[in-house]
Amino acid sequence: MYPKKLIHQAISNPDFPVVETKYGKLRGTWTDDCYIFRGIEYAKAQRFHLAEEPDPWEGVKAAVNYGPVPPEISTRIPGDAFTEPHFWYPQSEFCQNLNIWTPSIGTDKKLPVMVWIHGGGQEHGSAIEITAYDGEELAKWGQAVVVSVNHRLNVLGYLDLSSYGEEYRDSGYAGMMDLVQSLRWMKENIKGFGGDPENVMLFGQSGGGFKILELMQMPAADGLYNKVSIHSGTGKDTLFTKENAARVAEDIAGYLGLERKQIKQIETIPFHKLAKAVNYAYDRFTERTGKRLQWTPPVDYKRYWGNPQMDGIRFREETKSIPMLIGSVLGEFVSSAHHNSQDGDINTWSPETAEKKLSERYGKYKDKIVQEFLAAYPDKTPAQALFVDVFMRKPHKDLCRMRAAEESGAVYNWMLSLDMPCYGGSTPWHNSDEAYFFHHAEYFESEYIPEVSERLQDEMAGALVAFAYTGNPNHVGLPTWKPVTNKIPTMVFDRKTEIREDYDDKLIELVTKAGALGPGGKGPVRTYGGGPRERV
Amino acid sequence: MYPKKLIHQAISNPDFPVVETKYGKLRGTWTDDCYIFRGIEYAKAQRFHLAEEPDPWEGVKAAVNYGPVPPEISTRIPGDAFTEPHFWYPQSEFCQNLNIWTPSIGTDKKLPVMVWIHGGGQEHGSAIEITAYDGEELAKWGQAVVVSVNHRLNVLGYLDLSSYGEEYRDSGYAGMMDLVQSLRWMKENIKGFGGDPENVMLFGQSGGGFKILELMQMPAADGLYNKVSIHSGTGKDTLFTKENAARVAEDIAGYLGLERKQIKQIETIPFHKLAKAVNYAYDRFTERTGKRLQWTPPVDYKRYWGNPQMDGIRFREETKSIPMLIGSVLGEFVSSAHHNSQDGDINTWSPETAEKKLSERYGKYKDKIVQEFLAAYPDKTPAQALFVDVFMRKPHKDLCRMRAAEESGAVYNWMLSLDMPCYGGSTPWHNSDEAYFFHHAEYFESEYIPEVSERLQDEMAGALVAFAYTGNPNHVGLPTWKPVTNKIPTMVFDRKTEIREDYDDKLIELVTKAGALGPGGKGPVRTYGGGPRERV
Repeated sequence: MYPKKLIHQAISNPDFPVVETKYGKLRGTWTDDCYIFRGIEYAKAQRFHLAEEPDPWEGVKAAVNYGPVPPEISTRIPGDAFTEPHFWYPQSEFCQNLNIWTPSIGTDKKLPVMVWIHGGGQEHGSAIEITAYDGEELAKWGQAVVVSVNHRLNVLGYLDLSSYGEEYRDSGYAGMMDLVQSLRWMKENIKGFGGDPENVMLFGQSGGGFKILELMQMPAADGLYNKVSIHSGTGKDTLFTKENAARVAEDIAGYLGLERKQIKQIETIPFHKLAKAVNYAYDRFTERTGKRLQWTPPVDYKRYWGNPQMDGIRFREETKSIPMLIGSVLGEFVSSAHHNSQDGDINTWSPETAEKKLSERYGKYKDKIVQEFLAAYPDKTPAQALFVDVFMRKPHKDLCRMRAAEESGAVYNWMLSLDMPCYGGSTPWHNSDEAYFFHHAEYFESEYIPEVSERLQDEMAGALVAFAYTGNPNHVGLPTWKPVTNKIPTMVFDRKTEIREDYDDKLIELVTKAGALGPGGKGPVRTYGGGPRERV
Repeated sequence: MYPKKLIHQAISNPDFPVVETKYGKLRGTWTDDCYIFRGIEYAKAQRFHLAEEPDPWEGVKAAVNYGPVPPEISTRIPGDAFTEPHFWYPQSEFCQNLNIWTPSIGTDKKLPVMVWIHGGGQEHGSAIEITAYDGEELAKWGQAVVVSVNHRLNVLGYLDLSSYGEEYRDSGYAGMMDLVQSLRWMKENIKGFGGDPENVMLFGQSGGGFKILELMQMPAADGLYNKVSIHSGTGKDTLFTKENAARVAEDIAGYLGLERKQIKQIETIPFHKLAKAVNYAYDRFTERTGKRLQWTPPVDYKRYWGNPQMDGIRFREETKSIPMLIGSVLGEFVSSAHHNSQDGDINTWSPETAEKKLSERYGKYKDKIVQEFLAAYPDKTPAQALFVDVFMRKPHKDLCRMRAAEESGAVYNWMLSLDMPCYGGSTPWHNSDEAYFFHHAEYFESEYIPEVSERLQDEMAGALVAFAYTGNPNHVGLPTWKPVTNKIPTMVFDRKTEIREDYDDKLIELVTKAGALGPGGKGPVRTYGGGPRERV
């Protein structure tokens, strides 16, 4: 994704590296002991229809450049690209493409396949949106095949037009079924890239986590993966019912002036016009429900069984045995919001300044929260208690307990609490764990701490890779890590990584009671990083 | 611009690194012995008006993230991002910001200031568009202050509305005057960043070269720089006369339905609507002239004296003494076009295949051209003769001779002819020299050749830095380099760099005669890299 200092000469020749797939030959790039294939078309799709297998080709096709990324209704601009380095890329609705990083081709190594599913809700983002998603270091260091997938988002991925006729019965599932199609492609083709089609781990952050849980609730994905790793990506969310979905479709068709019998036109209308209609529908949705529309596939208890954390919904029997590695970071959006403030260096605030800010956020719970924070994180300062997330942490713990209670596959829980070095110090923010899980923290100015980062990324990426190999994240660099039972043993990744059991229950409870669920204590704000959104 | 493997911990704290400017304090980032200040606002501007000094501020302002880049009428998508790695970034017409890389702040080092002016004609691009424009390595290795500047482009930078009233008398110069304003900012503020305000070199590639020549023809820029380096960026171009400019303004206002007295509305119309009108005007311009509209400031012989290579126009007396370092690369757009082809590895074509292609491009001149090519480049193969640029090389040589004949400041000429390692071999393409001039070729997969690249970038960046220090590119790593007289001694950068005098005159003459001026021999095609342009 980004230029790295090369050791060897990269090779991208007409005849090397070349891999044969079911559809034809692909040539990629070999660079410093990693083979990279970018922008591989895994499917083709017509708007509002399910993706199908790609067309075969003659000769050797280039897989050297990234493919287009999915269109966004409005392109996200992070408030702080320093802590969340971004990579924008041309968008196209014909975005069914994936990228592969592998240490081995043309062998029978059967390396585990680690499939990265990006975040940004189901509205934003791409397989290459954030520079941390580059898979080269993880593939080489972990000796695994890393794959990242682009798939349709927002209106293109989830608009349910089923009430407009049989032709559109699947349109609400198009985005998730792109992902399924990519997994089918891997099943058939990943062997040529050194991967084991029978050992596939899904891992994703934020919206990527939500999408993984959705795949677990979709029968079409059964058998295409056998373990999942969810980073800061679960919660009880607005349920996108069939009724909600139908109303959104009506709002959009209405705005576009399309009668029922004209609905076919919605397939060819320019995307920027469609996007305007979507913004109109967003506003109507918020008027009706008081919430922001969160795209998901509509729940039909057939193709999609719904968010397992909602009342009355459970995990499907078919995915019960899937082992799960799950965790979040100490600051999440609370830290991100601070990066945009003019508040200066939290680690040099006077005690009075810190007190004042803690009172603003926590009110009468301030002292108790600071006490519980220091009990949970004894090496931290009172001021850092200001930057504690519960919006993610709470539902993650709930999910851990739920899986354990249902006697599902093993669940392992982690927390990243490392004080980051930028801006004079910051608790880890939403997405800051990926520089570590992808084993390249030393490329991130806002996150790299010499010696500390090298060890920590060995621990974190090591856990992820061990889990991808075996379904168990334990490795020699870590204390013994037991799965969740009625207790939650959490691997707290920090300068001194250790296991702590049920260590922050009281803290989470108090912060929740104080109503300080999101940035600034004003309740949950789903900003996905805090940046402004430009409307079309 | 892109993450680099860090050695030290980067520091971006509220109190370090901080530099005081005329308008207030700025804090940047210190990373591996380089201080980086990104997105510094050097001016503020209202649409179609000249930029003014920015507002002062209290406290310390962050200069950690890049600022927005200039809006493009249609965003350029390079056909091959592998050979031209790109960095897209959010656009805004409030794009008057610059980036600084410096090895030294808070000292009195008075390092030379190297001001990068990006290409993309005057239509496209940004200070950070191509990853090669990252100034960190050049600043550290060269011990110089590197600055890159965003400024208004296309309609926002050059629409001449002067016939609509006195208020808009300067609108056709807004983009170039942004650049002038940035140079004024440097004059007043660069000392705090370790720079010498009296030693400023402009360097630019492609459109960046054209913009430098325009600055030389604009009295407003006099005294703000004292040397120029032009890379693949000159030519006789469509003259954007006052009459042409006025017609374009009428087409745009007409499309928008604006009467003369309503013209003020053009300042607030959303950019995407304005862009539609611009596309309309482009088509009208092409109908009238048979050419593509190339934005430049209109020639009024007062604010702008016109392209010095056009008939009847000369350099202004005031810039005669400016020394010039100028050159281009062997393949330019001819190579870029080949990267998009399915033609395979040029270095393993059979003699018959090469013959056939040479005949297609050069017709009856084929044999003579191959003969002259091998005389000019004895280490190359006949097939490589297919990828020779004259579209850039010819006017560059003409400019060299013109400056020398006018007894201007010294002119030094170079050529980059290194066979690049990607796709089985490729003559250097348009923009491929920047990875070398910025001294970080080892970050570019398509360009890095171990040992060769390290030496070559020492030679090339060394010449650029020596020129920035003294106005003379000679350094201990190069053969003696004399300025142009009635002869052109060219420093041919390659595996074995050497000076060759008037070595390719016959080759250029023959290719020109064969009519093979651009990619595929179909005459000049101004694609700026060959990618498709998506219309708004």
